[in-house]
Amino acid sequence: MRIGIPSWDDIRAAAGCLEGKAHRTPVLTSAGIDALAGARLFFKCENFQRSGAFKFRGAYHAVSRLSPEEARRGVLTHSSGNHAAALALAASLRGIPAHIVMPSNASIAKRRAVEAYGGQIVLCEPTLAAREETAKRVFRETGAALVHPYDDPAVIAGQGTVALELIEQEPDLDFIIAPVSGGGLISGIALAAAAWPNIELLAAEPEQADDAFQSLRAGRLVRPASTDTIADGLRASLSERTFSVIQRRVREIITVSEAEIIAAMRLLWERMKLVIEPSSATPLAAVLKRRERFQGSRAGLMLTGGNVDLDALPWQARRNG
Amino acid sequence: MRIGIPSWDDIRAAAGCLEGKAHRTPVLTSAGIDALAGARLFFKCENFQRSGAFKFRGAYHAVSRLSPEEARRGVLTHSSGNHAAALALAASLRGIPAHIVMPSNASIAKRRAVEAYGGQIVLCEPTLAAREETAKRVFRETGAALVHPYDDPAVIAGQGTVALELIEQEPDLDFIIAPVSGGGLISGIALAAAAWPNIELLAAEPEQADDAFQSLRAGRLVRPASTDTIADGLRASLSERTFSVIQRRVREIITVSEAEIIAAMRLLWERMKLVIEPSSATPLAAVLKRRERFQGSRAGLMLTGGNVDLDALPWQARRNG
Repeated sequence: MRIGIPSWDDIRAAAGCLEGKAHRTPVLTSAGIDALAGARLFFKCENFQRSGAFKFRGAYHAVSRLSPEEARRGVLTHSSGNHAAALALAASLRGIPAHIVMPSNASIAKRRAVEAYGGQIVLCEPTLAAREETAKRVFRETGAALVHPYDDPAVIAGQGTVALELIEQEPDLDFIIAPVSGGGLISGIALAAAAWPNIELLAAEPEQADDAFQSLRAGRLVRPASTDTIADGLRASLSERTFSVIQRRVREIITVSEAEIIAAMRLLWERMKLVIEPSSATPLAAVLKRRERFQGSRAGLMLTGGNVDLDALPWQARRNG
Repeated sequence: MRIGIPSWDDIRAAAGCLEGKAHRTPVLTSAGIDALAGARLFFKCENFQRSGAFKFRGAYHAVSRLSPEEARRGVLTHSSGNHAAALALAASLRGIPAHIVMPSNASIAKRRAVEAYGGQIVLCEPTLAAREETAKRVFRETGAALVHPYDDPAVIAGQGTVALELIEQEPDLDFIIAPVSGGGLISGIALAAAAWPNIELLAAEPEQADDAFQSLRAGRLVRPASTDTIADGLRASLSERTFSVIQRRVREIITVSEAEIIAAMRLLWERMKLVIEPSSATPLAAVLKRRERFQGSRAGLMLTGGNVDLDALPWQARRNG
């Protein structure tokens, strides 16, 4: 099987395709958080991206590359959240149906988002087997094109555009740090940042869903022992494709605890006034945990999304028991 | 008594003074909220301003204009919140003391912010008389320069810079809508926007603290019947100075209910991923309440601040009783 990996030119082309369609999200800074970190931190606010997450980049790009004939049959995915909403929005912008296979335990906020964009939800049991089986059934019934959340070259190329944009906005970065889950974002960033070899690329991952960390250490794909993390966007695991890019280009994966994620999340809400989801807090948690590594540097941190249930924030849960 | 009103040149000068000191805050948009409103809305995100509110503009400008001799004795204000934190930060940047007279019922979040910036808090009873008496005592003891939250030409000129910036970022606005409390912001905006006579200037005010609305209708300063609103940044009342500007330049004051404020606030959190305080939600509440007035237009809305207690959000309070 040929493993398709987008080239730098593919990512440039994806950036052209997204121009005027995706938001050019702002890069924000905080003197207070810089003082805490001992570094200059540049937060790329993809929580302000359309559909509330960077996922719109990959989804829109993948949808735009379907032939008219393919597009007519619609698109299909199985996703626990942000990719689902992003694909529903991207499909609605092209005027085609999106069939979204979601586990029955997906958060209400994320289900509502998919519905708001006109996506058609097909619920299934919350197991990988049930998701794949249900997706196959929908495919048999509709012929819709599967747009995988991350194991798809067009999706990876779309996600990579965020790095081109960040580097254009902040040219002198020493680091770029992004969360890793299935690896679509970090491998897109790695391929995009290849033109800037001085930028060190790091990933942040929850200790409680650390398959990327384990895989990089073992030198082969390791299935996660658990995915029980509050960072609900980071429960997927790498594919051969994304792992192969990560292995070559990502210097280190820094794992962070649940408490570190929640503390960093609260800091971003309080000091920077940003509604971000727990996944987005992992890069800051990593920087604060490993201060010495970033001392005096300029680091770009990906805030990947802002889709949280405002009625169930982590600090509420902690307070109320 | 001479009522000092800043000129357009004063506001330009203030903008020069703030360059590189205040954040140039981004303007964000939301296709979803535009669809709800039937208008193109441009949100000027002063919740991302230093100290978490536009107040930094006026405070920094006022502090910068003190002579070295005046500055040495420090600054002094009585404020229930954002101006206090902003003045503390502005003073600390100049390396001078800030004495902040605060009512004993001020929120913990706002007290913490003042302390974090090195401000020296002097608590007093939560009455206007006690605040003024305490401020006089601190003045006798320190000789510190009073920087009023809004009834001060340097403060008004500083606040006005936000309009210059917004108009530069979005040149073709039909409306600018800002909350009104003591009137420092809206009068600064009015003076700054005087060079663009096609922009209609509106203010938004809580029904439950509607002294500006009442004053504009009566043609004279009317003291508020109540200030019992969740929009804790909007409990002050106009001065002769700010009223005189508002009378000449503000077309209409739109009042909004508590429920409308909370609904608009939640919309901004959910759809735009912005941590904003209730005051900041009043312009959007006004636009959604009076849709017909804004149909098809391009409106700039001031999101004035993001300083909220994350442990006591309005929808939590409602849910928990």
